[in-house]
Amino acid sequence: MLKVLVVPWGNPFQWEQITYEFKGIKLKSKSSLPLLIEVLKPEKIIIIALDTIANFRNRDGKPEIELKNFSKYLDVEKDVKDRIKWFLEKEILENILDPELKQKFSKFISEEKLKIIVAPGVGIFPNIAVEGEMLDFYHYILYKLAKELPVDDLEVYLDLTHGINFMPTLIYRALNNLLGLAAFVRNVHFVVLNSEPFPQGFIGEEKAKVLRETILHIRKVEDRYIHPKPIYSKVSNEKLVAFIASLANGFPLVFATFYPKINELESVLDEEFQEFLKNIEVKEKKIKRNKNLSDDFKTISKLFYLIKILNSTFDKSNINIPKEELSAKELESLVDIIFKKILKIKMFAKRDINIIKKFVKRAIKKEGEIKERLLHGERVRYLEVFNFIKKDTTDDAKERQDIDPRNFIAHSGLAMDLIYVKWNGNDVFLSYDEDRLKEVIEYSTESIRIEKVDHKNHQ
Amino acid sequence: MLKVLVVPWGNPFQWEQITYEFKGIKLKSKSSLPLLIEVLKPEKIIIIALDTIANFRNRDGKPEIELKNFSKYLDVEKDVKDRIKWFLEKEILENILDPELKQKFSKFISEEKLKIIVAPGVGIFPNIAVEGEMLDFYHYILYKLAKELPVDDLEVYLDLTHGINFMPTLIYRALNNLLGLAAFVRNVHFVVLNSEPFPQGFIGEEKAKVLRETILHIRKVEDRYIHPKPIYSKVSNEKLVAFIASLANGFPLVFATFYPKINELESVLDEEFQEFLKNIEVKEKKIKRNKNLSDDFKTISKLFYLIKILNSTFDKSNINIPKEELSAKELESLVDIIFKKILKIKMFAKRDINIIKKFVKRAIKKEGEIKERLLHGERVRYLEVFNFIKKDTTDDAKERQDIDPRNFIAHSGLAMDLIYVKWNGNDVFLSYDEDRLKEVIEYSTESIRIEKVDHKNHQ
Repeated sequence: MLKVLVVPWGNPFQWEQITYEFKGIKLKSKSSLPLLIEVLKPEKIIIIALDTIANFRNRDGKPEIELKNFSKYLDVEKDVKDRIKWFLEKEILENILDPELKQKFSKFISEEKLKIIVAPGVGIFPNIAVEGEMLDFYHYILYKLAKELPVDDLEVYLDLTHGINFMPTLIYRALNNLLGLAAFVRNVHFVVLNSEPFPQGFIGEEKAKVLRETILHIRKVEDRYIHPKPIYSKVSNEKLVAFIASLANGFPLVFATFYPKINELESVLDEEFQEFLKNIEVKEKKIKRNKNLSDDFKTISKLFYLIKILNSTFDKSNINIPKEELSAKELESLVDIIFKKILKIKMFAKRDINIIKKFVKRAIKKEGEIKERLLHGERVRYLEVFNFIKKDTTDDAKERQDIDPRNFIAHSGLAMDLIYVKWNGNDVFLSYDEDRLKEVIEYSTESIRIEKVDHKNHQ
Repeated sequence: MLKVLVVPWGNPFQWEQITYEFKGIKLKSKSSLPLLIEVLKPEKIIIIALDTIANFRNRDGKPEIELKNFSKYLDVEKDVKDRIKWFLEKEILENILDPELKQKFSKFISEEKLKIIVAPGVGIFPNIAVEGEMLDFYHYILYKLAKELPVDDLEVYLDLTHGINFMPTLIYRALNNLLGLAAFVRNVHFVVLNSEPFPQGFIGEEKAKVLRETILHIRKVEDRYIHPKPIYSKVSNEKLVAFIASLANGFPLVFATFYPKINELESVLDEEFQEFLKNIEVKEKKIKRNKNLSDDFKTISKLFYLIKILNSTFDKSNINIPKEELSAKELESLVDIIFKKILKIKMFAKRDINIIKKFVKRAIKKEGEIKERLLHGERVRYLEVFNFIKKDTTDDAKERQDIDPRNFIAHSGLAMDLIYVKWNGNDVFLSYDEDRLKEVIEYSTESIRIEKVDHKNHQ
């Protein structure tokens, strides 16, 4: 399990020293961070800050960093990072008394373990005014977290203590979605923390006394192993939608056929991201985002993270997809890996693959044309194999041509009209009719449409 | 669609007048609430406040409500409600200039449309110090929302603008979970709103100018139709766990057999809730919760809401459960209702019911003992019917006794060893072997266990 600590930070230059307590250990600091590092020993820390603290200085003149005349967004981002780093060094590190902890913390903030994400905020402040879609924040952090989160088994801690406004909820939502994807093939433990609120409303001597005496306990407000949670959103690229649906509803051959290439996803993302940056107008104390990050960007960021993790799994399992034709054995191992934790989908998909295997094996033992074609290694429409076997029995024989989308779903996407089978003397190979991929996409897409309840119908 | 507006409120006596804008309409107020009411016209409003504002008065001496010497928690709750109501009347209503809107708002705060939930907070403040588990807040609001949320099709708006600390994220999480349950049989639209942040850091004349000129746009930060999302948590009552699993994995006969009675759930909840209240120590300026609300309380609150909604649906559809024996037709309509939006579970479950129906119908046409027993209306173990049909064919005949839990899942809980079938001359009736209900519970429970990925295995 790789431990990752994610912390949204509002404006650290407004925080005051107080004693935090977590799992029996106490530490006085302006932030919960050093204590969390001491107790959790995370392998990676991600601080999510806002661009609205660019050029910020509090009444005490902190941080002691010069005010700038911004002309491009990269400078804004760098300024915020510098301010956060200043805070980490001057306000946290220098106030840690325990030399051992001090050294540990020092390593953390200098090494590659700590990542600062400066996300686009919104609002009017004396230091800067930022104008733009609030949702950019969410799309931005999804993209950045998709890039930053490791592909390993994960133990993710989200400390909400220092978040403000929309930050905590949107970061919570982003992690919830990304970790739900990781959970398909990884063990993922998610813990949400929050310290007791900072005492407010006291002044003068009383305030000093309260701050001296109060201990803010850091509490778990959520602690659970994450269940796999598929994507349900659609994007404009219909093949990606088919792929998304294949994961949600257990269509292994759709999954393998439309498995996206990670570098293609990445370039779509990077291109839109560059466009987004290019369209941020920066003029002295004003930042204006003229273009927002799209819904496609959001969904593809999730997909990117999913594929990043799946690739690292498939590499180790010698699974090589995308691929249009797979042996039953390959399909089965694919199902075993991706639906390991969703037993019902796994069992249904394997049952459906198995039925096809059985029918093909019966066909090569039964005298007739189909047998000959199969034994010659020819690709045969599965419907023909099915009818070849069923023809002599009383029940179930059918010459279906029309496919009900519901049937497609009920048979794990292995609708008998749409697939071809092949026999190589050893195993059955399955593939879709390349002339009917449009239908495959259509039925897959249909499967993640949200059904509306028509109450008149079942009242 | 019934519109519900949920708003977490930190401390309203710290808010200042500013112009809010939403969907083109502007309104100056200390809160986003009157504008949201004007634009959204919700049928119900739920304000979630904290007990930590009990006895609170700001520097201007507001609210003008006497300070009390609390001796019991009910007084604390009443005090907070009074303060919130004072704010609504004196600080919002009286500042609305438009007479029409004023009247509308006035109706809202006097009628039954507005509900104030005073939730247990935590923290040390001059007015009060509250000590207790932070998670009590989450469990408390789950319970209260489960009681307050209507059973209709829903359009739920969550405005995070005025939430503080853990409030927004935990309320978001609670709604996300509850609405995911409603979505099984209801159309549920969820919209999360947040106004742009209040301008901070300005003083004196500059502050006055900024507050005069700034318009805080209320933005959608989330807007989606909710997918059904089952419960995965376990509780100590194993029958309830079986029921929970039946919804998550599509076991219609388990669902019908173990369908909980709403009044039983409610009394379990109410009893623990009373215990919780009884154990809150209130002494002048100190509140101490000596007992926390349990994990079972959390899960049963969700179940309560689910059953409340399902009951209102089943009443209209003449479905009468719990019931230990159901006709195939009854089971099918049950599946049609509860899994309407989860096509794959619906199709799989119906396929499994259908196979059983077919076998029984074949059995009553085939000469033999089983036919006779069925025609006499006897309950026959389905395994016997299956073997009776399969005996003469070459494949698939089996005398299974051991059940693989995976098999139980793969057949929608209709494992042939565990169920009995009956023929009434018209339809097939299904029921579990009453001596093996323990196994039914065991396999159901097993189905919602999170599988751990063992990377050694598939590397």
